[in-house]
Amino acid sequence: MKKKISIIGSTGSIGTQALEVIERLPDKFELIALAAGSNKELLEAQAAKFKPRYTCLGEDELERIANDKENDIILVAVSGKIGLKPTLRAIENGIDIALANKETLVMAGEIVMDAARARGVNILPVDSEHSAIHQCGLKDAEKLIITASGGPFLHSTREVMQNATAAEALAHPRWNMGKKITVDCATLMNKGLEVIEARHLFNIPYEKIDVIVHPQSIIHSAVAYKDGSVLAQLGLPSMHIPIQYALTYPERFEGIKSKSFSFADVARLDFEAPDMEQFPCLSLAIEAGKTGGSAPAILNAANEEAVFAFLEGKIKLGDIYTVTERVLRTLTPIITPSLDEIFRADAQARNLVRSQINID
Amino acid sequence: MKKKISIIGSTGSIGTQALEVIERLPDKFELIALAAGSNKELLEAQAAKFKPRYTCLGEDELERIANDKENDIILVAVSGKIGLKPTLRAIENGIDIALANKETLVMAGEIVMDAARARGVNILPVDSEHSAIHQCGLKDAEKLIITASGGPFLHSTREVMQNATAAEALAHPRWNMGKKITVDCATLMNKGLEVIEARHLFNIPYEKIDVIVHPQSIIHSAVAYKDGSVLAQLGLPSMHIPIQYALTYPERFEGIKSKSFSFADVARLDFEAPDMEQFPCLSLAIEAGKTGGSAPAILNAANEEAVFAFLEGKIKLGDIYTVTERVLRTLTPIITPSLDEIFRADAQARNLVRSQINID
Repeated sequence: MKKKISIIGSTGSIGTQALEVIERLPDKFELIALAAGSNKELLEAQAAKFKPRYTCLGEDELERIANDKENDIILVAVSGKIGLKPTLRAIENGIDIALANKETLVMAGEIVMDAARARGVNILPVDSEHSAIHQCGLKDAEKLIITASGGPFLHSTREVMQNATAAEALAHPRWNMGKKITVDCATLMNKGLEVIEARHLFNIPYEKIDVIVHPQSIIHSAVAYKDGSVLAQLGLPSMHIPIQYALTYPERFEGIKSKSFSFADVARLDFEAPDMEQFPCLSLAIEAGKTGGSAPAILNAANEEAVFAFLEGKIKLGDIYTVTERVLRTLTPIITPSLDEIFRADAQARNLVRSQINID
Repeated sequence: MKKKISIIGSTGSIGTQALEVIERLPDKFELIALAAGSNKELLEAQAAKFKPRYTCLGEDELERIANDKENDIILVAVSGKIGLKPTLRAIENGIDIALANKETLVMAGEIVMDAARARGVNILPVDSEHSAIHQCGLKDAEKLIITASGGPFLHSTREVMQNATAAEALAHPRWNMGKKITVDCATLMNKGLEVIEARHLFNIPYEKIDVIVHPQSIIHSAVAYKDGSVLAQLGLPSMHIPIQYALTYPERFEGIKSKSFSFADVARLDFEAPDMEQFPCLSLAIEAGKTGGSAPAILNAANEEAVFAFLEGKIKLGDIYTVTERVLRTLTPIITPSLDEIFRADAQARNLVRSQINID
């Protein structure tokens, strides 16, 4: 039987790759709806080719998809906080979620996972790291080991890194991604956000989540088990595999193999502990995660605004940490926030960053 | 409920480590019997400490254990062809097998696996490579990737390797093993035998089994799946984990962690394709496997006799291949041999090696 699927964010990087996966497996999926934020032209081209029952343009229409109980699964592939509300609504409607939206779990991990558990809904990770952990299996897991490429400043001096320009920070060696996440990879903030996601997704305490720097990005993450054994998931950097696994789970099918993986071609893999002096954003994110409540939402919002300011040339790379850290110290997190309180914390943090940067 | 277990070969390296695993998990196992070939003293000491219902000394008594239907599982940890008959008898009695005896599947893979399938018996691998594959999971597997340390002659010239002495061949860098298997690791014959085992154990054609040289022996083997994803099992070289996994499967428990695994400590992993000119025993073994019938039994017997002659200083390391290859070309394999015909092929191959070496 075909899985009935919708894609929220079909014109973005993950959305378009998901449509390539679906195109390759025509007898596995039936497309219910495609939604895009603003790229009307591409959305119409996708609709002409893939013939979903309907399309949605703009944030307001996402509710319609989340309320359409025809869906077996919805791929949430928008970036930013607009992913959170439709995800939660779809969960309440008992629809499985393939999750490529970081903010959903960073901002409201407890609310979202509690709702998923209550409704018996699967939250299937699309991120390569979380997909790797999901593929290894969580039964009898003792520790999660999340790999990080280390970004372009892995072995720079601290001074070079702090004063880096946007052009330097965007020279990310392994994955082809958007600008915001590429900067987050350079500061390792992205890895900190992934630790927060993993904590919620896999219901495992922060003490049992390790980050290891692995510049080649071949091992996408690993799980250590009670008995001391370790499983790791490997592959060339490509999002097709984690997207497809989330959509076809618990089965695997032949899919898009742009290049097939070979240990001999890979030849060498390196690992090192992350330098927390070099990458203070990583420990800051984990600290916010441990504080919990609205703290991760504050962290995420402050960081995003700081990254935007960095990309506009208003601050230096090193200031992203300074600004975010100051906002986290200034705002008092709410312990068990409602969704509204989370959005309010997000707005407060953004305002604080903007006012700070304009004063500086 | 406790698993009722017996160990055939309790005084050897795997047997003693299995008793350490059992000692650590006293509420998981009840010991039925311990059997040893000749080490009466150690067997008695083990019996005094672990209090099995009975012990057996010598090959003749192994039948008793294999016929004791009280057993849920028998660990077959003897080396050599004496493991084959009791294993087959235990399978016929519906008893699961934790298999650490290479000859069982190399000599009679089809007979043994057919019997196991007919009785619905699990054959649980103890070898670190096969355990790794078992831990990764076989569902939707497309290819098995067996790792090989490459042994002490990995980057030697062919001449140095061919003329190597027993002392040089026994300088194996990663695992502490017996002399015979250490020589097999130096020639990569061991890896060829493991490919034959894997073919039977996992019912996968030879074309879908790759060997990759990985000098650090941290990745113990890997599985590539239909969708292009790869899972690998990792750990420090220690037999406690694969032994325990075979005995406690499908569950994992906290066990003996002599040293815990850390990617940062490991720091670097290397991989290269095996050089078939340097290691002709590897392709010879796979060729014998593809021929099938009694050919792998002939290969195994000829190689073992050649290794013994090498260890006695009668032939050079390079002659192991020459001698084994000649025996394989000389003897005509039987396509679907009976157990008796397999043992006869084994004896013929050994006699042929002995006569050749005495003539040379």
